[in-house]
Amino acid sequence: MSAEAGSLFTPRPIAFARTPYPGTSDVPKGLGTKHEAVGTLDVLPEFEEGLTDIEGFSHLYVLWVFHRSDGVALLGTPPSDSVAHGVFATRSPYRPNPIGLTVVELLHRDGLSLLVRGVDMCDGTPVLDIKPYLSSIPEDSIRRGWARATACCGR
Amino acid sequence: MSAEAGSLFTPRPIAFARTPYPGTSDVPKGLGTKHEAVGTLDVLPEFEEGLTDIEGFSHLYVLWVFHRSDGVALLGTPPSDSVAHGVFATRSPYRPNPIGLTVVELLHRDGLSLLVRGVDMCDGTPVLDIKPYLSSIPEDSIRRGWARATACCGR
Repeated sequence: MSAEAGSLFTPRPIAFARTPYPGTSDVPKGLGTKHEAVGTLDVLPEFEEGLTDIEGFSHLYVLWVFHRSDGVALLGTPPSDSVAHGVFATRSPYRPNPIGLTVVELLHRDGLSLLVRGVDMCDGTPVLDIKPYLSSIPEDSIRRGWARATACCGR
Repeated sequence: MSAEAGSLFTPRPIAFARTPYPGTSDVPKGLGTKHEAVGTLDVLPEFEEGLTDIEGFSHLYVLWVFHRSDGVALLGTPPSDSVAHGVFATRSPYRPNPIGLTVVELLHRDGLSLLVRGVDMCDGTPVLDIKPYLSSIPEDSIRRGWARATACCGR
């Protein structure tokens, strides 16, 4: 496969997130924010078989699209800071590939619908992938760079 | 933005991974595998500003493309198991959106090149995004479903 722009793959939604946040301005932001909101990931019927055995996992990675954000900003100032940082050192939505990543807790599965805690995306957000959360890096080995001043860090 | 297939965004590489693994068959697989291999993420010059302040983080999320894998398998049997599981409950490369996710340790930055430990992708893999690793889920709150029998879990 060529690595030239546009030839990698064509993203398609495998699910849509239902969350309490109608728009981007409704999503609590900043590193100190605890994301405890409950929502659902409504998986499209054609992908149902891919959910087999997902109930066994307590936490999931959700990869999703910043579908309300346009443009790229390589430097940006996070809501919790007054200094600009590189986009790859932040969770800014203005990324070269507008992919968001959230760790959620799986509360319940009802067929195609996953009830999850910890959503931080807008209602209607297209989901690209769901993966099992398998490991954790020991707390005492993590350095958080510019984000270290905040006791509680966003996921 | 319409959520129809093909209209979400066009993925483009922001970096390429240099790793010790020429092909997919060279990558150690299975849940018990420890990924300690060192490699580099060579960021494209146009994105250099996006790396500002990344040195402060000990661990990074790397989102990359399974560029050697074709096709989707909603059910698959992982190398460490004898039972098929849904693709969203595994790290199978045969995903509707062929995106891989790896947590790496940032050892050193030299300009556009990030020296990292924990690579598990093939040499030449296109990288879509790099994000700071901020939080960890407490070890005792993680359930690992079908993967629970293995003491050491892949990242």
